[in-house]
Amino acid sequence: MPRILVIHGPNLNLLGKREPEIYGKISLSQINKALKEMAKDRGVEIDIVQSNHEGEIVELIGRAEKKFSGIVINPAGYTHTSVAIRDAIEAVKIPTVEVHLSNIYAREDFRHRSLIAPVVDGQVTGFGFYSYLLGLEAVLYLIKEK
Amino acid sequence: MPRILVIHGPNLNLLGKREPEIYGKISLSQINKALKEMAKDRGVEIDIVQSNHEGEIVELIGRAEKKFSGIVINPAGYTHTSVAIRDAIEAVKIPTVEVHLSNIYAREDFRHRSLIAPVVDGQVTGFGFYSYLLGLEAVLYLIKEK
Amino acid sequence: MPRILVIHGPNLNLLGKREPEIYGKISLSQINKALKEMAKDRGVEIDIVQSNHEGEIVELIGRAEKKFSGIVINPAGYTHTSVAIRDAIEAVKIPTVEVHLSNIYAREDFRHRSLIAPVVDGQVTGFGFYSYLLGLEAVLYLIKEK
Amino acid sequence: MPRILVIHGPNLNLLGKREPEIYGKISLSQINKALKEMAKDRGVEIDIVQSNHEGEIVELIGRAEKKFSGIVINPAGYTHTSVAIRDAIEAVKIPTVEVHLSNIYAREDFRHRSLIAPVVDGQVTGFGFYSYLLGLEAVLYLIKEK
Amino acid sequence: MPRILVIHGPNLNLLGKREPEIYGKISLSQINKALKEMAKDRGVEIDIVQSNHEGEIVELIGRAEKKFSGIVINPAGYTHTSVAIRDAIEAVKIPTVEVHLSNIYAREDFRHRSLIAPVVDGQVTGFGFYSYLLGLEAVLYLIKEK
Amino acid sequence: MPRILVIHGPNLNLLGKREPEIYGKISLSQINKALKEMAKDRGVEIDIVQSNHEGEIVELIGRAEKKFSGIVINPAGYTHTSVAIRDAIEAVKIPTVEVHLSNIYAREDFRHRSLIAPVVDGQVTGFGFYSYLLGLEAVLYLIKEK
Amino acid sequence: MPRILVIHGPNLNLLGKREPEIYGKISLSQINKALKEMAKDRGVEIDIVQSNHEGEIVELIGRAEKKFSGIVINPAGYTHTSVAIRDAIEAVKIPTVEVHLSNIYAREDFRHRSLIAPVVDGQVTGFGFYSYLLGLEAVLYLIKEK
Amino acid sequence: MPRILVIHGPNLNLLGKREPEIYGKISLSQINKALKEMAKDRGVEIDIVQSNHEGEIVELIGRAEKKFSGIVINPAGYTHTSVAIRDAIEAVKIPTVEVHLSNIYAREDFRHRSLIAPVVDGQVTGFGFYSYLLGLEAVLYLIKEK
Amino acid sequence: MPRILVIHGPNLNLLGKREPEIYGKISLSQINKALKEMAKDRGVEIDIVQSNHEGEIVELIGRAEKKFSGIVINPAGYTHTSVAIRDAIEAVKIPTVEVHLSNIYAREDFRHRSLIAPVVDGQVTGFGFYSYLLGLEAVLYLIKEK
Amino acid sequence: MPRILVIHGPNLNLLGKREPEIYGKISLSQINKALKEMAKDRGVEIDIVQSNHEGEIVELIGRAEKKFSGIVINPAGYTHTSVAIRDAIEAVKIPTVEVHLSNIYAREDFRHRSLIAPVVDGQVTGFGFYSYLLGLEAVLYLIKEK
Amino acid sequence: MPRILVIHGPNLNLLGKREPEIYGKISLSQINKALKEMAKDRGVEIDIVQSNHEGEIVELIGRAEKKFSGIVINPAGYTHTSVAIRDAIEAVKIPTVEVHLSNIYAREDFRHRSLIAPVVDGQVTGFGFYSYLLGLEAVLYLIKEK
Amino acid sequence: MPRILVIHGPNLNLLGKREPEIYGKISLSQINKALKEMAKDRGVEIDIVQSNHEGEIVELIGRAEKKFSGIVINPAGYTHTSVAIRDAIEAVKIPTVEVHLSNIYAREDFRHRSLIAPVVDGQVTGFGFYSYLLGLEAVLYLIKEK
Repeated sequence: MPRILVIHGPNLNLLGKREPEIYGKISLSQINKALKEMAKDRGVEIDIVQSNHEGEIVELIGRAEKKFSGIVINPAGYTHTSVAIRDAIEAVKIPTVEVHLSNIYAREDFRHRSLIAPVVDGQVTGFGFYSYLLGLEAVLYLIKEK
Repeated sequence: MPRILVIHGPNLNLLGKREPEIYGKISLSQINKALKEMAKDRGVEIDIVQSNHEGEIVELIGRAEKKFSGIVINPAGYTHTSVAIRDAIEAVKIPTVEVHLSNIYAREDFRHRSLIAPVVDGQVTGFGFYSYLLGLEAVLYLIKEK
Repeated sequence: MPRILVIHGPNLNLLGKREPEIYGKISLSQINKALKEMAKDRGVEIDIVQSNHEGEIVELIGRAEKKFSGIVINPAGYTHTSVAIRDAIEAVKIPTVEVHLSNIYAREDFRHRSLIAPVVDGQVTGFGFYSYLLGLEAVLYLIKEK
Repeated sequence: MPRILVIHGPNLNLLGKREPEIYGKISLSQINKALKEMAKDRGVEIDIVQSNHEGEIVELIGRAEKKFSGIVINPAGYTHTSVAIRDAIEAVKIPTVEVHLSNIYAREDFRHRSLIAPVVDGQVTGFGFYSYLLGLEAVLYLIKEK
Repeated sequence: MPRILVIHGPNLNLLGKREPEIYGKISLSQINKALKEMAKDRGVEIDIVQSNHEGEIVELIGRAEKKFSGIVINPAGYTHTSVAIRDAIEAVKIPTVEVHLSNIYAREDFRHRSLIAPVVDGQVTGFGFYSYLLGLEAVLYLIKEK
Repeated sequence: MPRILVIHGPNLNLLGKREPEIYGKISLSQINKALKEMAKDRGVEIDIVQSNHEGEIVELIGRAEKKFSGIVINPAGYTHTSVAIRDAIEAVKIPTVEVHLSNIYAREDFRHRSLIAPVVDGQVTGFGFYSYLLGLEAVLYLIKEK
Repeated sequence: MPRILVIHGPNLNLLGKREPEIYGKISLSQINKALKEMAKDRGVEIDIVQSNHEGEIVELIGRAEKKFSGIVINPAGYTHTSVAIRDAIEAVKIPTVEVHLSNIYAREDFRHRSLIAPVVDGQVTGFGFYSYLLGLEAVLYLIKEK
Repeated sequence: MPRILVIHGPNLNLLGKREPEIYGKISLSQINKALKEMAKDRGVEIDIVQSNHEGEIVELIGRAEKKFSGIVINPAGYTHTSVAIRDAIEAVKIPTVEVHLSNIYAREDFRHRSLIAPVVDGQVTGFGFYSYLLGLEAVLYLIKEK
Repeated sequence: MPRILVIHGPNLNLLGKREPEIYGKISLSQINKALKEMAKDRGVEIDIVQSNHEGEIVELIGRAEKKFSGIVINPAGYTHTSVAIRDAIEAVKIPTVEVHLSNIYAREDFRHRSLIAPVVDGQVTGFGFYSYLLGLEAVLYLIKEK
Repeated sequence: MPRILVIHGPNLNLLGKREPEIYGKISLSQINKALKEMAKDRGVEIDIVQSNHEGEIVELIGRAEKKFSGIVINPAGYTHTSVAIRDAIEAVKIPTVEVHLSNIYAREDFRHRSLIAPVVDGQVTGFGFYSYLLGLEAVLYLIKEK
Repeated sequence: MPRILVIHGPNLNLLGKREPEIYGKISLSQINKALKEMAKDRGVEIDIVQSNHEGEIVELIGRAEKKFSGIVINPAGYTHTSVAIRDAIEAVKIPTVEVHLSNIYAREDFRHRSLIAPVVDGQVTGFGFYSYLLGLEAVLYLIKEK
Repeated sequence: MPRILVIHGPNLNLLGKREPEIYGKISLSQINKALKEMAKDRGVEIDIVQSNHEGEIVELIGRAEKKFSGIVINPAGYTHTSVAIRDAIEAVKIPTVEVHLSNIYAREDFRHRSLIAPVVDGQVTGFGFYSYLLGLEAVLYLIKEK
């Protein structure tokens, strides 16, 4: 039975309150609930962590290989600035999917370049909380295909 | 009953033969078959077109608003060069999802910038033919949410 | 009696419906009517074509020298991406005027650079459908001055 | 009865003598005569000023709102360097048209970017002295449409 | 009675010892003392935190909305690299002022661009420890004006 | 008794009327009144000049050293284009503070780079008319510290 | 007996009339005649197509693998803008040579970068119509060597 | 007796498992053992820390001046993104050497620029785990020379 | 008998006081005296003007053709920002030499590019006040050679 | 009887041993033999020189005009860095062809720009040693056409 | 018994006299003496050459493979400009180490990019003459490991 | 009695024959004659060398300090590419003047940036052979002033 790690990056704890016109009105716990339900449906285990700390996210990924079959990560603000998270993902050999709530390509210039994108398997961006569910779908597909 | 337009851009007719290490070994007709099955499952109609002509794709999109509830498009080589397709998508007010077989952010520099991405609702990239299925899923979600 | 070729580029068939806050509410047939009336007034013949195909526009221009005294062109989305249309205009030795409905210099960065502008005689931009009438005026002036 | 302000920027007093292969052989007083005749024809008042001083042009524009219905400006050398003139135009709420004698997009690289263009209503460029007449036509159209 | 959060970013604990020719000889505790005295004078409460951790600063800001009326932040080294802190400030709807001891625009090129500046209300830079006092003044003004 | 020179750059005479959503509704004479009152309070003399002319501002600064103890300058549109004003400030050895009404770092790209900033002592930006009062405060501090 | 496909890109139908100082005075039919004679000499079959349509050229190349042993292509205006043609060439596994009449490296900046060059076997540029003959020579050599 | 601080940056705990074709097969504990032996040989004390946290590394360096005579640091992923670590090194007045396992100049573009390099005394890069031993050698030389 | 116009640009009236380590200790009147003596020696007339106003310099040059045989200009701060002065020099058909006191290529980046240099006959830079004397020498040579 | 100079640039003496996967297994003497045979066939004289010295190549070209009718040059490493060789070719008025063994446009970025290309008549690139034979063919054509 | 080639690039003959604040006071012969002593200690042969000629350095490297087991090179001024030396090193299959006296990353921008670095095994920079000794150490390690 | 070294860079031996519309019709020996006469007039010794070899020029400069009081150098094609010559000039502590026959700022883009300019005392450019005479004048002035 596969086990998936879902990582929410910095500021995602503020979801629902933070700029709802960009990020939607759904709170993080609602997203987590939806993810857990879907995981149950598909018969997979799921671990969900939110962290504002780059180093913590690096460590979560570094330890993931032993315990998880795949990762769904929304690196949020670290998407554009963290070589350390990129290196961690590259070091770990399990399927990894990057997700974003908003369409990062329709926002400020500095958000158009993801340092993470070149090292993940694929990216889902722009569908609000539904990006996470598609991301989970995608990682399960990748695990099955391997 | 929603009706979805799926557009395959230039060279996708060569799929399966063309650089299988990048694009996979599945042919276009196999992708189309999978899309039609999924459409049937979800109770939606689906129209699938492949075109190598920028102008033809512009016209397909321009006429889409009347007949379709949503678009799934893989603009392929036109992703990085077509302002005309971008303008067509912007002009049409129906949910549109951009999909890519390969992870365009892990390839040549000029493939990192999509002229299309800023005007679609969201993007799914890097999961081989499965990007299309996730894209169809996404556009159905967007239609339902509207 | 001079004969003028007016070329409407990609997506201009959608005019009136497409983003009216940028392009105005006037439809293409209304613009064409105004152009024909003005042509009649000035005693010139006028041919009007709309095309979404880069290659077709290249051919229209390539054949123009024999039949027309001047060209008014709104290259729309091809303004920023078509070296082929630029080469066609450069090859043809008749007065050519580039027009735009919207002020392209007040929009997205990639719209600030016209590949066409350096090879036409002049450019009229930002006056909605009235840009076409000024463009026709301009091309008639250029023909007279030659 | 509308009243139009026409501003000739730096070095335009040298017209006719200065690089006639670029700017034509017509002198500034001949342009002014043509503008006045056209203004008379259209039943509008016209004020024409030439200035080599950025600050003076800023002041002419700053005071224009009370006395004029529209502005036609050829910012000449200040086109590419004056944020102050740009700010003045942005501050003043009357229709403003930028004109250029030569096709600035067919000249040196630094002339391709107008700091003024994004804040005027529209631009006419490349038709020699006739750019002014088209510019006057354009500003009258804008006043009427408002 | 308003309550203000003052955040000192990374390395500011070294103040006084670290490059005194750039940052001055005053220690962080002396700055804090001056801030507290001024706060007392103005009848406001003040909380002061120094942190070298990007994630910790993100969290301080994320929790600030409930407890504070305004923020004065010197993001120090994170000024130029932290999208996460920028996102936190953007998410929080209280007046925020960015301060710098040195004139960052007179130093190395990479210090000229603040990722934080576009999302704060205003910036005070270059007056040594006095930047903090002016920053506090500024945030009190912003709170009063709201 | 110190004497301060306050310089308002181009277009600031239009304040209150010009784009109030960016610059606020307060007129220049109201700002000047507030500055004079504050000067009186602090027991300093103050001279206030508004000029739209780059050369005039250069001369004001060039002559300042003999008569003034400090300068508060809002270079407005010349902020981004005037090496001459920069050189004047660099030549004059008295404390100088740059102020801006709006947060220039939250506006168009070309406003993010101040040619003036690297040669002043410090900068206050984004607090509306209150930027001037903080700027005056700052320059008095710098004079005292010298 | 090898069979070669020669593709002439956009505007090459105008050859001889179009800017003879750059492209020479020889017409396309004269080039074709020379190519056919040389093909006959070498005992190879040759198919020659001119197209102004990007999509058509994409299709010609996409179908080439089955019928041809090699391709000689002058992509003309599409050299600098077509990712779709590049992708088609990359997909097809037969020797391909890019030719240009003029020395593209001695012309405008945007002509210095060929999107096609990195995916062909080699390039011959600058020898007028003789570039085609050398290109044919080159492709025959590549076929023989394979 | 000099005491040296060795800092291993993010992801170095994964050494040996992570991309051995780039970083080699030696684990971090093997490197540490070699460093300790060499330190013993040279009669110096050595402290070795691995951290994935930027803030923690900032603090290690900030406190180093009192306890250590020199620093050997492999900033790993933070090499290219951390102004905070750069500022910490600049603040501390003891000899510091930057080391890298792989040749960062032979890898992705974003790894060619070290924000750390301009503030350390010197850099050793590309010799696998032996870079650390040379780095220790170098820092001992610098301490002796001081 | 030739007559030469010498133009000193903005801030040069401050010479001797302004940053003597860059511009030297000689005052403008001393330079003028040396120029007049040299002019007398060579039997030429000389007119010397200092102006801080871009527009004034534009006018001085615009009127020069009738009265002068050559121009020696130190555009100072306008060197890098004035298209208007460049256009004036281009319009005037008499020999013109650009001089600089300091070596502009050894200073800040923005001083490395002279907008004036491409339109003058030649440039003398870096020899302090002696640049003017060499510039006068040069312009006399150019006049003689014409 | 025409006489051709063939110049082999730096490192070409290592041919056959140096990176055979890029440059092929043929040695320089084998290439020279093929060139001499072809020259004999065509009834032309041929001089072949290999040099690793930029200055020597400059001199070979500088002296070529008197003795040779044309030049075939593979500038190798100097292709991208030598303005001196470019100037020498520009100074000499005989037909010159640039050849490269590998497809320089398919290699590292810095190899995409040839400083030599804009001043030669044409370029042949990517056909291994056969590039030289095509280059010789091309130069003979150019000589005949002159 | 391994034999090492040490190459000193241009201007290194001036060592000790040339800018001692950057390059130190030690002369080249002192460095050579230290290298020879160390070589003797380690039981290796050493050849040391200084050359100001790019072509000569290319040849030294080109011939090295037969006679030497490794190279230590300080390319000095050619570090940033020589593709020819880079190609020579790439062609030769023996361990090569790049060394620099000064920290090139703390100097002018153009010194930050080494064309040589991507093709050597590793780089030692910033330790004055000691960089050479560490470089020798490094190359011996590489030879042993091979 | 001062002794001056004049260095003519690559291709200057071709002077008079090479592109006379850019470099003039005067030969190198005529320039040398003029320089010698002027030297005689001023009572200085002069040594003149022409070299096409970067390394040779490096050595000429490296040895100059002992024998010469000043250098006049036209680095020609090495102006834009030689860090080695730049380093040599920087190492040598005698007055050095850079001269150019043509106005390098009015030519191709890559000629606008001199690597040499930031390290010489001053530059004279654009006066044909007269640039050398002014350069000699300038270096004598610098020697006298020292």
